[in-house]
Amino acid sequence: MRKIAVVVTARPSFARIRTVLDHLAVDPLVDLRVIMAGSALLHHYGDVERDCPYPVAARLFSTLAENTSETSATETGVLTIKLSQTFAEMRPDLVVTIADRHETLATAIAASYQNLPLAHLQGGEHTGNIDDKVRHAVSSLADLHFPATADAATRLAQMQVKGHILMAGCPSIDLAARAAWTGRYQNSLVILQHPVTTEEEEARAQIDATYAAIRSWRQYGVIWFWPGQDAGSDRIAKRLREIEHTTTNIIFKRHMPAQEFLSLLRSTRVLVGNSSAGIREGSYLGTPVVNIGTRQAGRQCAENVRHVGYDAGEIDDAIRYQVDHGPYILSALYGRGDAGPRIAAVLADADREDVDRGAGASRKPGCAEQELSAVGGV
Amino acid sequence: MRKIAVVVTARPSFARIRTVLDHLAVDPLVDLRVIMAGSALLHHYGDVERDCPYPVAARLFSTLAENTSETSATETGVLTIKLSQTFAEMRPDLVVTIADRHETLATAIAASYQNLPLAHLQGGEHTGNIDDKVRHAVSSLADLHFPATADAATRLAQMQVKGHILMAGCPSIDLAARAAWTGRYQNSLVILQHPVTTEEEEARAQIDATYAAIRSWRQYGVIWFWPGQDAGSDRIAKRLREIEHTTTNIIFKRHMPAQEFLSLLRSTRVLVGNSSAGIREGSYLGTPVVNIGTRQAGRQCAENVRHVGYDAGEIDDAIRYQVDHGPYILSALYGRGDAGPRIAAVLADADREDVDRGAGASRKPGCAEQELSAVGGV
Amino acid sequence: MRKIAVVVTARPSFARIRTVLDHLAVDPLVDLRVIMAGSALLHHYGDVERDCPYPVAARLFSTLAENTSETSATETGVLTIKLSQTFAEMRPDLVVTIADRHETLATAIAASYQNLPLAHLQGGEHTGNIDDKVRHAVSSLADLHFPATADAATRLAQMQVKGHILMAGCPSIDLAARAAWTGRYQNSLVILQHPVTTEEEEARAQIDATYAAIRSWRQYGVIWFWPGQDAGSDRIAKRLREIEHTTTNIIFKRHMPAQEFLSLLRSTRVLVGNSSAGIREGSYLGTPVVNIGTRQAGRQCAENVRHVGYDAGEIDDAIRYQVDHGPYILSALYGRGDAGPRIAAVLADADREDVDRGAGASRKPGCAEQELSAVGGV
Amino acid sequence: MRKIAVVVTARPSFARIRTVLDHLAVDPLVDLRVIMAGSALLHHYGDVERDCPYPVAARLFSTLAENTSETSATETGVLTIKLSQTFAEMRPDLVVTIADRHETLATAIAASYQNLPLAHLQGGEHTGNIDDKVRHAVSSLADLHFPATADAATRLAQMQVKGHILMAGCPSIDLAARAAWTGRYQNSLVILQHPVTTEEEEARAQIDATYAAIRSWRQYGVIWFWPGQDAGSDRIAKRLREIEHTTTNIIFKRHMPAQEFLSLLRSTRVLVGNSSAGIREGSYLGTPVVNIGTRQAGRQCAENVRHVGYDAGEIDDAIRYQVDHGPYILSALYGRGDAGPRIAAVLADADREDVDRGAGASRKPGCAEQELSAVGGV
Repeated sequence: MRKIAVVVTARPSFARIRTVLDHLAVDPLVDLRVIMAGSALLHHYGDVERDCPYPVAARLFSTLAENTSETSATETGVLTIKLSQTFAEMRPDLVVTIADRHETLATAIAASYQNLPLAHLQGGEHTGNIDDKVRHAVSSLADLHFPATADAATRLAQMQVKGHILMAGCPSIDLAARAAWTGRYQNSLVILQHPVTTEEEEARAQIDATYAAIRSWRQYGVIWFWPGQDAGSDRIAKRLREIEHTTTNIIFKRHMPAQEFLSLLRSTRVLVGNSSAGIREGSYLGTPVVNIGTRQAGRQCAENVRHVGYDAGEIDDAIRYQVDHGPYILSALYGRGDAGPRIAAVLADADREDVDRGAGASRKPGCAEQELSAVGGV
Repeated sequence: MRKIAVVVTARPSFARIRTVLDHLAVDPLVDLRVIMAGSALLHHYGDVERDCPYPVAARLFSTLAENTSETSATETGVLTIKLSQTFAEMRPDLVVTIADRHETLATAIAASYQNLPLAHLQGGEHTGNIDDKVRHAVSSLADLHFPATADAATRLAQMQVKGHILMAGCPSIDLAARAAWTGRYQNSLVILQHPVTTEEEEARAQIDATYAAIRSWRQYGVIWFWPGQDAGSDRIAKRLREIEHTTTNIIFKRHMPAQEFLSLLRSTRVLVGNSSAGIREGSYLGTPVVNIGTRQAGRQCAENVRHVGYDAGEIDDAIRYQVDHGPYILSALYGRGDAGPRIAAVLADADREDVDRGAGASRKPGCAEQELSAVGGV
Repeated sequence: MRKIAVVVTARPSFARIRTVLDHLAVDPLVDLRVIMAGSALLHHYGDVERDCPYPVAARLFSTLAENTSETSATETGVLTIKLSQTFAEMRPDLVVTIADRHETLATAIAASYQNLPLAHLQGGEHTGNIDDKVRHAVSSLADLHFPATADAATRLAQMQVKGHILMAGCPSIDLAARAAWTGRYQNSLVILQHPVTTEEEEARAQIDATYAAIRSWRQYGVIWFWPGQDAGSDRIAKRLREIEHTTTNIIFKRHMPAQEFLSLLRSTRVLVGNSSAGIREGSYLGTPVVNIGTRQAGRQCAENVRHVGYDAGEIDDAIRYQVDHGPYILSALYGRGDAGPRIAAVLADADREDVDRGAGASRKPGCAEQELSAVGGV
Repeated sequence: MRKIAVVVTARPSFARIRTVLDHLAVDPLVDLRVIMAGSALLHHYGDVERDCPYPVAARLFSTLAENTSETSATETGVLTIKLSQTFAEMRPDLVVTIADRHETLATAIAASYQNLPLAHLQGGEHTGNIDDKVRHAVSSLADLHFPATADAATRLAQMQVKGHILMAGCPSIDLAARAAWTGRYQNSLVILQHPVTTEEEEARAQIDATYAAIRSWRQYGVIWFWPGQDAGSDRIAKRLREIEHTTTNIIFKRHMPAQEFLSLLRSTRVLVGNSSAGIREGSYLGTPVVNIGTRQAGRQCAENVRHVGYDAGEIDDAIRYQVDHGPYILSALYGRGDAGPRIAAVLADADREDVDRGAGASRKPGCAEQELSAVGGV
């Protein structure tokens, strides 16, 4: 019986692990422990626990009520202390962490300092901001790597990370593969714009540019999502509240069930903003995307994405282009819809010694790439 | 005036930054803030503050009284909270962290999450244990890299870390260059063996093997140093206390002034154990070294080091070999004795924009290596 | 020069220390350090810093984004760590804490464990809930006590707290004394109902009873304030948001400048809810108050307060009684409007030795009461 | 089935709860959860877990490696965070905390803020130092009080603490009642002198006075115990190490099994120092005690104790007096040897509603004293 602790610290991370959980939960040889922490516990950002059909083994509150660049570090410190205690009691055989939110480093520290093998999903990607640093730091601490793309797998191999690299695509694509098209949204624009942590001061101006650009498109219906929780999101939320009070034809949403959101992505006329969903799930769904600013700057994109600056004119032009173009054809860049079972199988079966050997021993350069092609099937 | 915060979290780190501090302290354009934290504050492991001629801007206690793999994570969490507060008040222009002790991640998190440029000394090395993970994770978060060797610089470039890589050697070699030879120790053996965090349970047996090997060499005089503070050091300390009570001709030392220790290294017949000092400073000083076990396994060595397992016979043979060989000729592998002024100059002058550009922007692959050859002079 | 650190952890506390700050700030022999922490830093609950005319020496974020009974303890732990660091660097001669919010214990622990004399305002009162426990615990740790009422002073003497007890009234009454009457609100009802931490589950039903009671009074205008930040306030906030969307003639307010709020209290027809403002400032201002439930159960009241249960009928009857009665005559129960200068004078001049002697030495029983009559003038 | 969490944070506390645990552990209706935290986990101060025959439900490391007045507050903060998490997972029906060490406030905060009924042993005593503050603060937060003496019970009633007060003596006396007399120690002096937290700077000089006084008594044999862990204990430890290296006829002990220590107390010629053991267990055992300085200043004493200052001459005279006097007759001041079963019975059976009513409701003054006489049998 292998005890596997999966730490979910944010709503988007949940979508990127969900189908892995589905398979681990029914494996009779796996004792699955889901730990909810950080912003995954907040009502405000869409309480993840409600959507999680599996029992939650621990709830670790660590998110502070105010977002500044200082509080991110404090939150990571608090969560490191709490996870350290949880792991010491739970003694999992394997810990799983997802993506690159600042708290993922807490999971990585608590696990690796206690000599618990650590699996990391979504490592090796490149986005050009602070998330890169966190993501690579977590990869440095991890023993099993599940990058979502071939590029990311190659980068991990170049970084000479410890342990095995297994490319199976992103589990969020598994969910996207099940998303239905719905005529209800076929005319609407969807906006999802997060703060950029290194541009905290400009958050308000950035939102204003987007707002100016989409004003002329309001007639088709606009659905504007509240930003995720991060340094600067309060400023955006404040501005959105003002816009909310003075504008019509924009529906503001704090949260939407994951599957409904994917249907929205599959059906929307254009997705505007800087969400990774446009780039990841959007690539598979063929969603026309206008990606604004630096947040996703370095991330690998399929054909469906057009990049613009924080400029109302540029944004407006790109929206027009995408409206004219219409839906794109499916890309397998971020996966083919089978990542969940493939990753779950490795987590459940990975030889403990393999993981340890990966963690402790020196490796010949290049062998990660070989494993990659053998296991990842690319 | 550039405010530079240097965070020292352990005694060995102090030796590896000391000559940098010497130059920063007298630079009229630099406002130097030395922060002492973690085990650097402990009397037990040789209170570093006593040896530091510069004012200490903050003392951040974070080391717990018991060493387990769990407490390392808790300590890192506590220090992350405290440093986060210190940086928020101090607002340094640049933060400097050294090497790979577990708390260095706290410095890296607190600095990088607050968008403070982070400089890291001793990144890119490879030692084959948990320290590798921590060291690479810190490199992932840093913006300015000062690796000690050409190999380390190349590895950082391969890892595609953000920002500039500048190879100038290790400042600890600057101190070694000043160490006098002293006849007093020319016959003695010196032992310095730390616990290996992933082999915590075996710490006692490992010490026993060393003890068995050196028993026949006691007649020449043996100086045995207390281990540094880490998971497992309590077990070693306990065993040493027992040996202390039952053996003669071994002098046990908890602490020795840095310069005297370097003279000891320059003059000793053989250094036995797993200290990096034998490999780093020893390479420059030509010290004959018997390196035991996995702790330094992957670290790049000069001619002066012989590697053995945790086996009394092997250790004894290697001591005999080194005694017969005598002192080695000087190697420049870890530096030429001028690292302090070269690193200080870059810290004091590095263009803020350069650092930021490094941190935020996408870089062409390969450019780090070019910088390396341009700046590092190799 | 005496360095006095005043720690403000919540909006209401600021009103209860404001006139003390006004006097300390202009005293040339006092070095005033205002520390903002906990919910005093939150925009959501009315960022106190905006209203504070004095420089803020430290901002210590500690409030978590979700309110549960668990998070209160975590917040207190985090703030204890942070204040401990701040005091160690600042080395104040005296620390001042106010009232009974859960984080006040963090201030009390950080100060008293570092042997810093601690002054506590608003000790000795009795309200019949968890706040009593916290308030008395803080009094146990304090060295100088400034209770607001004669009853409270007597209770502190009975509790045999260390140090001096000086009854000077509550500084919030100083502000009330300056509040103007304004015809604008003379017909309105004001509602301010906080969660009761030990009745977290019932928070929603409690709000429903109040809402049912005031529905028939909406024609006169109703101003309903958002609750303070505490376990259960999220439930109230959620219910208020629903009411906000379905009701007219109720103005919902998150925040109001302190002086405007006091004018509102002086002028309102009836104050409904469980705020201590009705009982404290209301007693001085003659505000007709309907106090609901257990939150203020044990608190000493003047004539102006009518107590009712969580029952719509009872609440409605009491509102009718108070509307018929109209404004009450002024009571000096909580002070006469001169608490600020009197407390500031003692803080600035209290003999350090006196404070220490109070803290360390055994005292004859009864002497506190003598000091009380001598200093408090009752 | 009632789940009772007992939090042990120091070695002396364990002796004061041991016989209560013995009875709770065999009660089929009680689910006993022993939590070890703070210095109870340290090898250095005599790892308590080794002596505890019951399973340990959680180990919460919180003690820092250096003792300063600052670290006590940090430790309390860290333990508050950790206990808060443990209680949230464990959901005990009742939490038990013992005495007055600084971390006991962490237990009290974590329990009472989560609305868990809190029982406190050893409240109400008066010792004249910082411990008084902590002890009374814990009493303020507790719902069930088990003072050890009639005086302490009366003081708690005067303090108007919430909930029931039940005087049953100190469980440590139960252990003392089983201690055998042993001729082995009948000539020896025993020394046990802790640092006084408010006199941290003088710790060394205080030890020197004691050392000067006992030098002339060394011929009879002296057993000197290492101090407990507290601010200043490092200074004492350092001085003791010096004395250890230069003196004969003194046996230094870090730890002694509890029962052996009690036999030592029963049999020693004189106990010198400032340990509460001399006053508590010593009163029952008739041990001649020379109590030095302020640490126990206010504590209620039987005939067996002579108080002196930090003066070698005074100490020497008092030792002579006690040697001449010899053993005292037994006193029941701190209990009659049946505290364990009596307290365990109340913990196991106390009506939850009673506890809650005590915690939440206003009580008639004086009723605590009635309960006291009814239950405590005095």
